Amino acid sequence: MKLLHTADWHLGKIVHNVHMTEDQRSMLEQFVNIVEEEQPDAIIIAGDLYDRSIPPKQAVELLNDTLTTLINDFNIPVLAISGNHDSPDRLQFGAELFKRQGLFLDSKLKKDREPVTLHDSYGPVHFHLIPYVEPAEVAYVFEDPSIKSHQEAAVKLIEDIQERFSMDERHIWIGHAFLAGGMESESEERLSMIGGSPYIDAHLFKDFTYVALGHLHQPQRVTKETIRYSGSLLKYSFSEANHKKSVTAIEMEESGVSSIEKVALQPERDFEIVEGYFEDLLQGEATNQPTNYLHVRLLDDGQLIDPMGKLRKVYPNILYLERKRIHSSTRLDQLEKVKQRQKRSHEELFASFYEDIKGTEISEYRNQIVKEAIQTIKDKERGK
Amino acid sequence: MKLLHTADWHLGKIVHNVHMTEDQRSMLEQFVNIVEEEQPDAIIIAGDLYDRSIPPKQAVELLNDTLTTLINDFNIPVLAISGNHDSPDRLQFGAELFKRQGLFLDSKLKKDREPVTLHDSYGPVHFHLIPYVEPAEVAYVFEDPSIKSHQEAAVKLIEDIQERFSMDERHIWIGHAFLAGGMESESEERLSMIGGSPYIDAHLFKDFTYVALGHLHQPQRVTKETIRYSGSLLKYSFSEANHKKSVTAIEMEESGVSSIEKVALQPERDFEIVEGYFEDLLQGEATNQPTNYLHVRLLDDGQLIDPMGKLRKVYPNILYLERKRIHSSTRLDQLEKVKQRQKRSHEELFASFYEDIKGTEISEYRNQIVKEAIQTIKDKERGK
Repeated sequence: MKLLHTADWHLGKIVHNVHMTEDQRSMLEQFVNIVEEEQPDAIIIAGDLYDRSIPPKQAVELLNDTLTTLINDFNIPVLAISGNHDSPDRLQFGAELFKRQGLFLDSKLKKDREPVTLHDSYGPVHFHLIPYVEPAEVAYVFEDPSIKSHQEAAVKLIEDIQERFSMDERHIWIGHAFLAGGMESESEERLSMIGGSPYIDAHLFKDFTYVALGHLHQPQRVTKETIRYSGSLLKYSFSEANHKKSVTAIEMEESGVSSIEKVALQPERDFEIVEGYFEDLLQGEATNQPTNYLHVRLLDDGQLIDPMGKLRKVYPNILYLERKRIHSSTRLDQLEKVKQRQKRSHEELFASFYEDIKGTEISEYRNQIVKEAIQTIKDKERGK
Repeated sequence: MKLLHTADWHLGKIVHNVHMTEDQRSMLEQFVNIVEEEQPDAIIIAGDLYDRSIPPKQAVELLNDTLTTLINDFNIPVLAISGNHDSPDRLQFGAELFKRQGLFLDSKLKKDREPVTLHDSYGPVHFHLIPYVEPAEVAYVFEDPSIKSHQEAAVKLIEDIQERFSMDERHIWIGHAFLAGGMESESEERLSMIGGSPYIDAHLFKDFTYVALGHLHQPQRVTKETIRYSGSLLKYSFSEANHKKSVTAIEMEESGVSSIEKVALQPERDFEIVEGYFEDLLQGEATNQPTNYLHVRLLDDGQLIDPMGKLRKVYPNILYLERKRIHSSTRLDQLEKVKQRQKRSHEELFASFYEDIKGTEISEYRNQIVKEAIQTIKDKERGK
């Protein structure tokens, strides 16, 4: 059995005020071509189909077009879950009717959930579709108020599966979550934080044949080869500029996964960070692909007149222009500011935040309310 | 063949700040019971499934539950179109996949559209699903820029059907529009207005076996028995207080419609207008059903302290409280005001409108823009 694993489409995403819909459409056409070439037995979309709970209508149209093609033209089962960006209620529309067409769209956690079971010549493969849910929802569904963290929620969900099904057969977990190991050192540090940790220990999943994850945008394995993030469809921020986006093709045999391959996605307009002096950049040599989405870092010191306007004539899709402040004196000034800030009281910090956001000074009346709120919290912390 | 015809569900409707979702849910349960009892061969929903283009998630859930029950539990084909309140793009999600399940959900006008054809022992019945569209969209689809009015759009659509299909067979039109005859005298007057008329001449539809309409909220026939509005699911304003809501059951034989019956819908909370003196109303005898949604008209003259608060203890669902101004002098004052208003220029009217809406006087700069716009329109009207 061959699977294609993708996630984090984020349809309807807006980056620096630019709608990504056209880029997403071109990328999904590429995805459909990959499907046609690879001829998988099932397609997994591990959450964040949309970027927000009420996506723009163009995004709705694009998802509709894509799923309709996969189901109606190719007749390949699609197994999709909602991620933290999706609205479970809205994504659930039609789900019961879609099932009969081979589109399994799960956005709500239920008790006694049945996996979707597909077969190959070696026997059944069970797909467990676990939509993104808060720990409180798992606590509610399993009537177990002791579940407070994502880790505890995952323990419960896995326990439930292992109680009801024989793990001798092949089981696939489809989830949208932070699995520890995904970000190495940083993640371990966060794991040790008491409470509120978003991380789940990847070792919990050791009995699953394959774990198809969404949430992290970089394609990567977590602790072992068969626990994987497919990564997002596109780059969605400049922090992803160095990513190589792909979908993951998985081959399974009787004993489990026999091969894993990343099939590259080539964006029409890439995300790129370029750095240089204004006059040099105007020569147009900062990038091989001037239509890329650019984050431009200008090294110039002095005043420039309308640098964005001028640069956009050469690079039409600059999303962000940054002036590098390299005076050491300025840097010291900033350090000094940070130090000053650290000395300020909660009241002062809030007043400054208020002014930043609202553009006017906080009134005495409101300041009083803030003071009292802070006092209440401090009292509580001291156990009064 | 037996049909059930309903329309104007307006799921997600808010009336005087009250969400109607629970009333709608109870009404749709009643509707599902009617379906179970009547066992129709098809169900028609003639537009305005939702009240707005982005309905609240509870409305999405309710529509999903209802359609899923009709299709999955009863296996009865559902033929639905979008009305002027629905978002064509959002309602289109999954439409291609739903078709195979017997849910025909049409919200976009296409060229060479095929009807949905069902069969009984007398032969085929063709259902033409015509979503609500602006005349400009019909002009675009048929590449005929001469189409400017709803009337011209309907002429074109009917022509197109009659060219491509034999009208000897039975044809059903499902539409969401204003058909003339629906409001008698008033409508004829409006029909005579040059351009921009929303009305369509009902006689255009004479060759259709049945015309299933949505848009007007009162169940009614238009010029003939087989051209009908089913009316809305619920009362949605106090102007509908005297309506009797129903769904329409239609029996068809070889030659056409053989019987039409209105199956009553009984709301849990009715809309009612009550009138009386404050002290009398407090006795609780203004209505047999104190939980009804009430528009209360108080006849009292003098000052009353918190009448809404006090009345709500007896009638919890008062939506609107009106004080009747019965001083004849006041009435004359108002008449005088209306007369004065009629004398005012367009500029003055706009300035007053602006002040009403924005709460501040219009600036000289903006007033100038309005003046110029009005002048442009006047010039155009004079054929300059």
